[in-house]
Amino acid sequence: MKLATLKNGARDGRLVVVSRDLTRCADAGFLAPTLQVALDDWRRVQPHLKLLAKALEAGTAPSWSFDETATLSPLPRAYQWLDGSAYVNHVELVRKARDAEMPQSFRTDPLMYQGGSDSFLGPRDPIVMADEDWGIDMEGEVAVVVDDVAAGASVGEARRAIRLVMLANDVSLRGLIPNELSKGFGFVHAKPSSAFSPVAVTPDELGQAWDGGKVHLELMVDYNGAPFGRANAGVDMTFDFPTLIAHAARTRALAAGTIVGSGTVSNKFEGGPGKTIGEGGVGYSCIAELRMVETIREGAPRTPFMRAGDKVSIEMRDRCGQSIFGVIEQQVQVRPHS
Amino acid sequence: MKLATLKNGARDGRLVVVSRDLTRCADAGFLAPTLQVALDDWRRVQPHLKLLAKALEAGTAPSWSFDETATLSPLPRAYQWLDGSAYVNHVELVRKARDAEMPQSFRTDPLMYQGGSDSFLGPRDPIVMADEDWGIDMEGEVAVVVDDVAAGASVGEARRAIRLVMLANDVSLRGLIPNELSKGFGFVHAKPSSAFSPVAVTPDELGQAWDGGKVHLELMVDYNGAPFGRANAGVDMTFDFPTLIAHAARTRALAAGTIVGSGTVSNKFEGGPGKTIGEGGVGYSCIAELRMVETIREGAPRTPFMRAGDKVSIEMRDRCGQSIFGVIEQQVQVRPHS
Repeated sequence: MKLATLKNGARDGRLVVVSRDLTRCADAGFLAPTLQVALDDWRRVQPHLKLLAKALEAGTAPSWSFDETATLSPLPRAYQWLDGSAYVNHVELVRKARDAEMPQSFRTDPLMYQGGSDSFLGPRDPIVMADEDWGIDMEGEVAVVVDDVAAGASVGEARRAIRLVMLANDVSLRGLIPNELSKGFGFVHAKPSSAFSPVAVTPDELGQAWDGGKVHLELMVDYNGAPFGRANAGVDMTFDFPTLIAHAARTRALAAGTIVGSGTVSNKFEGGPGKTIGEGGVGYSCIAELRMVETIREGAPRTPFMRAGDKVSIEMRDRCGQSIFGVIEQQVQVRPHS
Repeated sequence: MKLATLKNGARDGRLVVVSRDLTRCADAGFLAPTLQVALDDWRRVQPHLKLLAKALEAGTAPSWSFDETATLSPLPRAYQWLDGSAYVNHVELVRKARDAEMPQSFRTDPLMYQGGSDSFLGPRDPIVMADEDWGIDMEGEVAVVVDDVAAGASVGEARRAIRLVMLANDVSLRGLIPNELSKGFGFVHAKPSSAFSPVAVTPDELGQAWDGGKVHLELMVDYNGAPFGRANAGVDMTFDFPTLIAHAARTRALAAGTIVGSGTVSNKFEGGPGKTIGEGGVGYSCIAELRMVETIREGAPRTPFMRAGDKVSIEMRDRCGQSIFGVIEQQVQVRPHS
């Protein structure tokens, strides 16, 4: 089942079921007006949504053309957004880039931060920042939406609570990270609003590519129209989603609709720091990693962070080349100082 | 105007208007079923709520006895919970307690963390933890709820966005803080679900005690039935609420219903580390501060953190002795390991 949230002027939009090929959608608002309402009562609502999805595929439900540009993020706002750093390769590279050591414990104790969840960007919204020099970067990620998870839940319980999978662009302000992290309380200023893919899907839509904990498919990140990253989200993921969820629930319950992110998808390359796609590597899901590789090789970063007009797109396709979640496509804009 | 959320089996409860003396309440669900719905459309809903509050005071609205124990937190879940550390005295003491330096920049650049907002505790809910040895502590705080705040908002714009004031118990797990903060990404495990006062009030309810940025009243913290803290929330607050809100909005918009906390209320005492109420001081709003003072004076902390059965209550009264927000009262319970 594929779900999306259409813009309708309200903060939480309107829930629709989307066809597998992303060409058609059917109103689901009569079952649950918003995705959060559906998640609040998933056991009751999900079978009805599934029947509607079946009717949509069969052509027997009233439907219309699905327009990705008319969507908000599947959850335009959420009660919780917890982002892990499951691809430890990314953590290691980014830490090197700011001359910080990575403790060995990071390979056994997941890194995770709590992010702002009150105002997500839509998948095609511009990234509007007051200052181009904040070091604007994308982070291509996979994210899951969970049902209620009890405090102290096991990894198995966490696995069974995964309801939806989507993609994320966890926008980061690299220039603000050192000061924020030096204060010890997390990213705050350095992680402005994230955006999610136009469509969220139930794990069964991923078929063999979903093993219950990871998505074994390439995350396609393009930058200014050229391939930038093709890392496989199922590779080098040190902590799978159930492990991240159980970690998040160690001392508290998680409520239905909580989003848990994977952190920037990142693959190692022959034990080294990785290669661009042009050089035959899988590239990167954020600019910071490429800059680090440039620093290692050339002594200094060469690729600038995003500036006004720069555009990132993030997508994932199935083995037949069909887009699964639709496309996140965001361009940087500069907000005039008031 | 005073507002509360009654338990009704639904996740977000039911909105009621409460009388100034906290004895009566009137259903407001026909105006907005939940407090979040009211905040989503405050400009339209607020005048109606105000009329209802007036009718309640006049005895002309249908009403019934208000029962604080029947409430959830005013926002049982929120889209954002940002907690500042506005009382730098607290930060200094707690850092000393874990042998960490406080940088001078903390006096000009507010400390703030993003907390879990998906599952707040009710004001009389037990604090249920799996392990008594996690160093369970209360933190008595003041918190505000804001309307939409644009990214980059000025302090003046932030001031005008304050809609409600309430009290908070920002439960902290002192034993888990060092490991979590050493990872650099924030508190996560160390800050389980917070609880808020039974009643949230519009700032005008505070009269002269509200100066547009601070609440000039004592925060009454009792521990196991005895007075523990009587710090004045208007004293030694290095950053007022508008400053905290503008700080939070530096790189992102804040959506209506975002909660911004003050951090543990803490007063200096003659330039020294403070005195207990028994010794003629104003005491403390958390145990960690008292333990630090004990360490300074006696070489080691004497007061243990909270264990099963320990009870904290947090309240604020107006100059006539009338409770403004009702009472947060929470007892620690231990959850058996599964």
